[in-house]
Formats: sequence, structure tokens, C-alpha cells
Amino acid sequence: MKINIQRSQLNSAVQQVSKAISSRTTAPILSGIKIEAYDFGVKLTASDADLSIESFIPAEIERKIVIKVTKTGSIVVPAKFFIEMIRKLSSDDVSLEVNERLQLNIKSGSTDIVLACMDAEEYPIMPRLSETNMMSISNHLLQHMVRQVVFAVSTNESTPVLTGVLWTLSEETLKLVATDRHRLAKISNKVTGSNFEFSNIVISGKNLNELLKVLPEEDEIVDIIISENQVLFRVNQLLIYSRTLDGTFPDTSKIIPQNFKTEISFDTKKLADAIDRAYVLSREDKSNIVKIITETDGSNQVEISSTSTELGKVTEWIDFEKFSGEALRISFNSKYILEVLKIINSKYIHIGFTGAMSPMVLRPQTGYDTLHLILPYRTAT
Amino acid sequence: MKINIQRSQLNSAVQQVSKAISSRTTAPILSGIKIEAYDFGVKLTASDADLSIESFIPAEIERKIVIKVTKTGSIVVPAKFFIEMIRKLSSDDVSLEVNERLQLNIKSGSTDIVLACMDAEEYPIMPRLSETNMMSISNHLLQHMVRQVVFAVSTNESTPVLTGVLWTLSEETLKLVATDRHRLAKISNKVTGSNFEFSNIVISGKNLNELLKVLPEEDEIVDIIISENQVLFRVNQLLIYSRTLDGTFPDTSKIIPQNFKTEISFDTKKLADAIDRAYVLSREDKSNIVKIITETDGSNQVEISSTSTELGKVTEWIDFEKFSGEALRISFNSKYILEVLKIINSKYIHIGFTGAMSPMVLRPQTGYDTLHLILPYRTAT
Repeated sequence: MKINIQRSQLNSAVQQVSKAISSRTTAPILSGIKIEAYDFGVKLTASDADLSIESFIPAEIERKIVIKVTKTGSIVVPAKFFIEMIRKLSSDDVSLEVNERLQLNIKSGSTDIVLACMDAEEYPIMPRLSETNMMSISNHLLQHMVRQVVFAVSTNESTPVLTGVLWTLSEETLKLVATDRHRLAKISNKVTGSNFEFSNIVISGKNLNELLKVLPEEDEIVDIIISENQVLFRVNQLLIYSRTLDGTFPDTSKIIPQNFKTEISFDTKKLADAIDRAYVLSREDKSNIVKIITETDGSNQVEISSTSTELGKVTEWIDFEKFSGEALRISFNSKYILEVLKIINSKYIHIGFTGAMSPMVLRPQTGYDTLHLILPYRTAT
Repeated sequence: MKINIQRSQLNSAVQQVSKAISSRTTAPILSGIKIEAYDFGVKLTASDADLSIESFIPAEIERKIVIKVTKTGSIVVPAKFFIEMIRKLSSDDVSLEVNERLQLNIKSGSTDIVLACMDAEEYPIMPRLSETNMMSISNHLLQHMVRQVVFAVSTNESTPVLTGVLWTLSEETLKLVATDRHRLAKISNKVTGSNFEFSNIVISGKNLNELLKVLPEEDEIVDIIISENQVLFRVNQLLIYSRTLDGTFPDTSKIIPQNFKTEISFDTKKLADAIDRAYVLSREDKSNIVKIITETDGSNQVEISSTSTELGKVTEWIDFEKFSGEALRISFNSKYILEVLKIINSKYIHIGFTGAMSPMVLRPQTGYDTLHLILPYRTAT
């Protein structure tokens, strides 16, 4: 292999695939990045067996030559060193040449590096997925949908399937669900042109967080290709493979209340600030418990409060926008509600209550079909 | 105590004194911030016994009333909660009122807080230092001098005095020295108008780093008041007290070479980038060893290289600006030299060598009387 390549192009691709490198890999070959040089461009691959990322750099971009391939070939470079060094090289022209002893010679400006590498033959081969089960979605919509649910996955490894997000496609509607048994996040949206259906596809929250980091900023089209145990996200020259999680995701449809005893709308930011101040105190007691009490004096306010046996009490009064139904007194984990308010991206938020012992349901005022459910603390106060 | 105070003024002062709060304090009272309300303003004090910070907020600032004192008095508030809550309050008018049960009532906008506090009588009293031993210095010069040396203090607690910076004032020249036995940093500068002298005043690097955080951005005058076991830095309404470290700082004057066998000047940034790339490889071997070899071929370059038994070799060629003396081959800890190059703030750097087994001396091209000394690795290669 012998190529000359623009440092900026190489660096972007290296940074993209680097997201799949794990510091605690079991297979030594996966501590490397595979570089394959073809006449038409260079492909980089990195993987931690669970998540794999491929980035292809075409030899010509917008009629400008960015890679000159003198000799095709492939090699696996030590990832950590290569990622940092490509970022730090001073010249934009980088020459990469492999010798017969599996060493890569990197030359750029006044820098000359000889690097011990690994054999590309030993690198695992990415599965070729059939494109029959493919749907397409706008990149921005995909990012929005993933963000609305991924924070609610469980961090408890004892039920692995709950550390992932459930993906379902049915009647041209894509639905994502995550739950950690204390809360649930759900979003669904029409996706046109997808003529197949799937259910019980679960992708780990960790991989989806990496996906968010690596998806481009621009609103491109992302193809999603589903197979039995892998999902491939493809956008432009970037391929992200994620294994799916084993196990059956619980049926959560029954725990979502359909009717509410009390419904209140708030300004999202004002509610978030008030709960945040109550949270500062509740955290000191390590409980995070915050209470909401509706006033019965006819004012347009609810009371939000927290108490610490050691420190004292914080009381907030917050105006609501709309109120209907019964008076209410409920305790909940303020961290859960703050995470929803931070992500929900809507000026007003609508909260439905079914009683002090039942879940509360938060929805944005407008927009996508989004729902956040939080279980209350089962206290009698 | 009963006052109304502008949140922004209170918050600035709280953030300043918060730098003296330690999370692992032995005396419970020091987990608090002392608030004292006088007719003419409010004083805040925080301390970890070793470092203490006082900030005074005058009742009137530029003819605007920022504090209304209804009743003078004092209280010690729980620092962690108070710092975060004052930052998060939504209204700029904050009312603070202490009741007879040592509780502070904080009211601001729609927030009402009752906070269990501690008795101000139990708070340690700051020493009153005699102003006879006082010098004054520009804030910007003070910050510059401290930054040039504080990174070189020892982190090894077995010789406590080396975890500090030595301050000496003699013949109207202030001199700061720090060393961790592997390197030494020294800076001195004329300070006019100081009619006294001191030596062997050692202030911990930790306290000096906090001082850098709390000194204002503007170039004010800082008064430095020296006593036997305390140093007070005073700027405007801000007082920073640091205990001095016990023990005698070693005499470092003899280890600084006066004559060099080889002298080379470099562009600081180019040298830093080249050594940084060599460092990336040397770090993989956990040695950080980088080698400098002067070329004997008459070119204007030196060779900088590092080798990792596992990974390979990085070689850099860098142009020098000036060269005089003998050819050279020396190995050194690249982290030490990178820390100097990052802080030295000079377009060109001058390095003097006295041989492969002797210290190298780095100086900025111009400016303050600054010197950085680094001991080489005593290898024979």
C-alpha cells in the first residue's frame, strides 16, 4: 500500500471511526483501525465487536484529487497513536507506505514516522446486509427521535434488554421506546416509503449515543438496514453497524394511562428552573424527592417543594398556563423530570396525573408524538 | 440579621470565596461561608484553615444602593447549597433574614427557602496582619510571575516545602522559585517602593493556583502583606490569606549553569509541535523520553526523535534560528519541556546545554528575567 492523502480528509474519517474503538477490547486486532486503499479511494474501519464504523474517502471530492493511490493494499494501524498523530501533523499532505515487515511509514512535512502495524487479513469482515429490509429517514429527525428516548435506558446490566432502545416499524410509523422501570420515553413518527415492518429490534443506548456523535450536522438521508442481529445506519460514505440486543423487550403499552384526573400545562423553562432549585436541596438528602401540590385558593399557581431533614426547606410557586381536574399532591424523583424538561424542546409542557400513586405523563405542547412517563415516589405525604 | 441584596453582587462574592472551601474539611464550621452584615456592607468569609478568602460588598457601588441593611448581624451558611442556590435564583433581589433558631430565610422572586445555619461566633477569626511588611505589585505582573513557576512545584508530599513556591524580596527585586528536583522554574522582577526585604517565604502551589483563579481580570494593584506564618494578598475588596509552608527551601542557585557548551534558539511554537508529536509515541512506552541530536551536516536543523520498542519511531527535523557551540545529543523528559514551552509566552526560545548529563536551561527571547531548568535523562545513548 502506498498513498498520498489530504490530512484534513484523513483526519475527519479517522475521528469518525474512532468512536467505535473501545479501550478495553478483548481481541488485540480491534485496538487497531483498518486502512484499505483502493484505486477509487480509502476505507477506514474500526470496531469493538458490538459497534463498527466504516468511513470511505473517495479519491476525488468535487473534482479535486484528495488521494493519490500509487499502490493499493491494506493494513491495521494502532488506533490510539494513529488518531492522535494524524490530528497533530503539521502539513496537509500525508504519505502512507507499508513495507514488507508490516510497518507503516508516515511522512508529512518534517515528520517521519515508522509504525509497527497488524495484518489486515486478521481483521474481522463486516457483514453484508441485504438491502431488502431498508427504510430511509431524515438525519435530523433520526437524531431528534433518538435524543428523546436514549437517556431513559437502564444502566443496570442485570436486564440487558432494558439497556437498549426498542425500535418498531409498523404501518409506516417508526416508534422508539426506552424504559428503566422507573420511567419510560416513547416517540413515534411517520416514515414514508418503507414497505416492510419490524418489531423487537433493540439497540444499546451506548451505541445510539455514539451514533449521535458521528451522524453529520447536515440534514442528509440516513438509510437504516435491518437484519436479524445487526442494524446498519448508512449516510453518505459513513456506515455504522450495531449489533442488536438479545431478549424480549417488555410490553409497556399497558402502563401508559389513557385518562387523567388532573392536567396542567407549564412554561417548560420556568418549571425546569423551579424544580432545579428544589432539586439542589433534595439532593443533599440523597433522595431527590420533590413534591408538587396544587393550590386550592383559586390562584394560578402550584407549589413545588423539597425538604431536607438536615438543611431545611425550599418552596417554589410557579404559574401554570392551564389547569383542569382535581387538586393534587404528588412526590417524584426530580432528576427524572429535569432530564425530560431538558430534552423536550417545547416552550410549553403538558403534564397529566392519574393520582399520587400512579404515573405522570409529560408531553410537549406540539410537534412529534412524544411521551415521557415517570413513576411517582409511593409515599403517603 | 436582615438585608436585601442584589443577587449578581452576592453571587460574584460567593463565587470568589467559594475557592477556599474544601470538600474534606475537619472542622464542620469550615464547611460554611460566614456572612456578616454591617451598615456599610456585607462581608463573606470562607476558609479551609490553610487558605482563607474574604470578599466585601459595599452597601453602595458607584452611587447605586446594592444592599439595604435592615438589621446588622452574622451567620454561617452551608457553603455547597448556598453557592449553588444563589447562582440559580431567578430574581435579582434577594432578601436574607436570620431568625432566633439560627435559620436563614432566603426569599427571591417566587422562591422561599428556610436554611439551617451555624453560629458565626464559632467561626475562626482572620489574623490582623501588620501593614509594615507590605509590598505592592501590578495584578497582571503578579499573575504572570506565578504562572511561570507554579506548574513546577513538587506533587510529592514527602518533602512538603517543595510543594510550594519560594518568595524572596531583596533589593527591590521579587523572586519566585519552584522545583520538584527534576526541574526548576525561576522568575524575578523589579518592584519599586518596597522598603523591606524577606526570604524563605514558601506558599503552597495549591493556594497559588486558587489565587490565580480569584484575582480579577483587570490590572489593579495588589498589596502583599507578609507575616511570620501568613501572607495576605489584597486587591480592592478581596482578601486572600495563605499560610506559609514550614521548612527551609533548598539553595538552588548552585545548580544553575552559568556557561553553556551549546546554545540554540528555536521558534517556540514549532519546537513545541515537534516535541509534542515525539511525545505521543514516547508516552506509549511510559518513558516520555525524547532525544535531541544536532546535525553535523551544516544544515540549519536539529533532529528530535522518540522510540517505542513496541510501536516504532517518530523523527522530526526542525529549523533553528541560531546555533553556537558543540554538536549535541541529549535525552530528556518531553512532558517537562512541553510544560515550559506552553507557559513561556515568547515567540522564540533560547536553550543552553552544558552536556548530555547536565541540566538544560530554557529562557524566553525577551521580557522578564525568567529561567527554566530541566535535568536530562542520564542515559548513555
